[in-house]
Amino acid sequence: MCFLINFLILPIKQEECKIKEEINIFVSIQLSKKDKEPLYVQLYDQLLTMIHTGRLGSGCKLPPVRKLARYLSINPGTIVNAYKELEKNGFIFSSAGSGSYVSSQTLRQHSAADYEFATDNIYMDEVLKPQKNSQAVNMSSISLNPDVISVEQLKKIFIEVLDRDQGRAFSYQDSQGFLPLRESIAANLRSINIHTSAKNLQIISGAQQGIDIVARALLKHGDYVFTESPTYPGAIASFLANGAKIIDIPLEQDGLDMNVLEKNLQQFHPKLIYLMPVLQNPSGCSYSLAKRDKIIKLAQKHNVIILEDDYISELSYRTKLLAPLKSIDRHDNVIYLKSLSKIFMPGLRLGFLTMPEYLAAKLLNVKYITDISTSGFTQRIFDLYLREGYWEKHIKDIRRIYKTQFEFAYKTARQYFPCDVTWHNPEGGLSFWLKLPERFKSKEFCRKAKENNLLITDGTNFYPQHMDTRHIRISFATLSLQEIETGMRILGAMFTK
Amino acid sequence: MCFLINFLILPIKQEECKIKEEINIFVSIQLSKKDKEPLYVQLYDQLLTMIHTGRLGSGCKLPPVRKLARYLSINPGTIVNAYKELEKNGFIFSSAGSGSYVSSQTLRQHSAADYEFATDNIYMDEVLKPQKNSQAVNMSSISLNPDVISVEQLKKIFIEVLDRDQGRAFSYQDSQGFLPLRESIAANLRSINIHTSAKNLQIISGAQQGIDIVARALLKHGDYVFTESPTYPGAIASFLANGAKIIDIPLEQDGLDMNVLEKNLQQFHPKLIYLMPVLQNPSGCSYSLAKRDKIIKLAQKHNVIILEDDYISELSYRTKLLAPLKSIDRHDNVIYLKSLSKIFMPGLRLGFLTMPEYLAAKLLNVKYITDISTSGFTQRIFDLYLREGYWEKHIKDIRRIYKTQFEFAYKTARQYFPCDVTWHNPEGGLSFWLKLPERFKSKEFCRKAKENNLLITDGTNFYPQHMDTRHIRISFATLSLQEIETGMRILGAMFTK
Repeated sequence: MCFLINFLILPIKQEECKIKEEINIFVSIQLSKKDKEPLYVQLYDQLLTMIHTGRLGSGCKLPPVRKLARYLSINPGTIVNAYKELEKNGFIFSSAGSGSYVSSQTLRQHSAADYEFATDNIYMDEVLKPQKNSQAVNMSSISLNPDVISVEQLKKIFIEVLDRDQGRAFSYQDSQGFLPLRESIAANLRSINIHTSAKNLQIISGAQQGIDIVARALLKHGDYVFTESPTYPGAIASFLANGAKIIDIPLEQDGLDMNVLEKNLQQFHPKLIYLMPVLQNPSGCSYSLAKRDKIIKLAQKHNVIILEDDYISELSYRTKLLAPLKSIDRHDNVIYLKSLSKIFMPGLRLGFLTMPEYLAAKLLNVKYITDISTSGFTQRIFDLYLREGYWEKHIKDIRRIYKTQFEFAYKTARQYFPCDVTWHNPEGGLSFWLKLPERFKSKEFCRKAKENNLLITDGTNFYPQHMDTRHIRISFATLSLQEIETGMRILGAMFTK
Repeated sequence: MCFLINFLILPIKQEECKIKEEINIFVSIQLSKKDKEPLYVQLYDQLLTMIHTGRLGSGCKLPPVRKLARYLSINPGTIVNAYKELEKNGFIFSSAGSGSYVSSQTLRQHSAADYEFATDNIYMDEVLKPQKNSQAVNMSSISLNPDVISVEQLKKIFIEVLDRDQGRAFSYQDSQGFLPLRESIAANLRSINIHTSAKNLQIISGAQQGIDIVARALLKHGDYVFTESPTYPGAIASFLANGAKIIDIPLEQDGLDMNVLEKNLQQFHPKLIYLMPVLQNPSGCSYSLAKRDKIIKLAQKHNVIILEDDYISELSYRTKLLAPLKSIDRHDNVIYLKSLSKIFMPGLRLGFLTMPEYLAAKLLNVKYITDISTSGFTQRIFDLYLREGYWEKHIKDIRRIYKTQFEFAYKTARQYFPCDVTWHNPEGGLSFWLKLPERFKSKEFCRKAKENNLLITDGTNFYPQHMDTRHIRISFATLSLQEIETGMRILGAMFTK
């Protein structure tokens, strides 16, 4: 029998699962030295499948390294490596002198019960896998393919910054951010009709931090926040952690349902509306001009702040770049938040937001409490990247590359999907948001896809109430054209089964 | 008349100060082309003095650039640069088409009224100055001199990481941190008798983030936190922002006053005790072995978590390295928090903490909400730095360099200070904590020091209740021996006046 371990409150009670400890259940493991994957990755994948499918439940003890090595006739080092990867990614944990155990679902999901959200963490789905798993086509990740980054360019920039600033490049940075970078960004924003200045920009360590800082600065326990439905799960997590009540407003193809928005504005007086008006995540839809105007007017009328999260507007392929809401915001109701993670390098942890003057001190103070400042070194790197024109070129390059991916993905999706799979045809981005035919449930569908070596994202997590079970997100961000075709074919077959 | 501008709630009401706008008050400005400081820095300093002394109050309008340039017979570009620096550092703000104004005290202090703390921000004192101000001896900063960092070594490491990991160096990192780095750190910790493993380490973006993550994960509104008195103001800010009530326990030369601690433990049942047992900031004191043992026992008895902040234990010069509290913690009551900002490079924003297994999910979840993860690139850099032995060498180097500084500072202090200035003679560190003779008040004393071109830190901010007005902190972290002597001489003269 397996016992669910509570990691949150009590020290761990290690309960061995006697039945499952029997080595026999590992008979299904098939490792091949001819496979191009290293043995430990093969073992990792197969153990992970056993965990996911429940054959290895929470709290179960894994066989000792030497015992399993003998049973599988492989080197104990291989087992150690596979266990290490599983441990790194939170699927198992080890206890000195006692062995390795399957983690509880709670730990794996990175969610804490007292934050009252039980969402699967989409982001974790993207990263909690070994980096090489060529068996599966990964339509879950919406990060750029790391190969689009020119490492040689970056080396040049690093050396330039170090030669120029020496040890000072690593000194404390003021909380608001490196002034020359804020100036570069302000200059850059003019091209999308946002007129601001360095003093109204706050540098942040990625969009998640920006959302959380705004939430901490603005929200008190019990305050209402409006979001789109569906929306970004990291934002839901932050709003709930900050004690807010979320009201999610249905999203239509051209933006929020305005009737529902107006009715709710009158009734609930939210402090904050969190929107992604251009190439929304996950739906891909962009707001019509009429709805943008209307929303700005409503924000002013109801004295509410809009947090506009622009995570990917540069990747609009069909029309010219879509202007952000901030560009028509004449009364400073909009905080424009820009992540550089999705269109540049997530590993830098960099982004920025515009601060209305009347909120500057509050936001700055929360930023200070959170981490004093974003890395000054990273800021210097990105500043030079912008100033030397690499950024502009990078954006052109990724638009070109992903336009091809996007069109190919669209074509193959139409080719393989039956007509009862519906999806909004986006203007750009890195993913499609599919509505499944009625006979499917998204969670079960994703599980089956995994069995077919296809990773896709369950849409349920994008809804604050987790009530929708009919959507999935599929992405082509890290895939070759061939992999896109494979993925679409697998999905097509699943739809028509 | 000047009006205090409320930046926190209302949009700015720009109220001009007609009297002070008169150009005449700028007659005191004296700029010299022969001075080795650029003209704009001279102008910056003199305007700043006018702001600090109240001659330019909150909300006052500064003269238009051209008008002041004509008046002072200098290039308008010089005025623009000085205004820019003032704006960057929050002392003034500009409003399109209307001119530049002196910011309110509130904005300058980076403190928000609804966090109910009105501390001067020590950190900001350190960074809110132009980086070159050779007129003043800076005994306020406790960051290492940037020149102790070997830039050539770092270049080598950057290139090695990029060649090895390519674009992947900038991919998403899992929230807990880069596994090889956690392994390197775990191995390193053994040398100070902390036995942990990669799975129990959480990588963080500096100690401030670590404190804030622990506070968010553990504290509910109204919970009690115990701190030392005096303690680190960034921790006070975070605990208050998280709704906690702080009880500060007096610090004796060998650690907390144990009678007061025990009495308060019985009465208030705190969730958390925040301590710096080795070379405490700001007092420099280290806990005796007896008090360490006793505190560990009390933590276990009262079921309270200790957050041990080790910010500088490596810089113990007189005895061998002092072991952290964590090394005698047998029941996982201690979270050991290590900043790399003070002994390495603040600009990297890097640190780590040990996670008791029963808190792992909670802490990880808050880390995710806060910023998803610390930069994976930075983590890879530091991992290699550790693995290739540079870290060990760096620590040896800075111990050698700062031992000399420390001994010289101690000697000159004894030489120049009268005997009614008392201070605890620390085992190491980068600063001294002085008790002023009764006739002085610390705030006023610091202001006067500034007038004498000496920057020192007012001790009041280190007390949660801001009741102490008799302490100052003086540091030699960024100074040459000559500057140390100058600083001590200025202080000596001030004491004996």
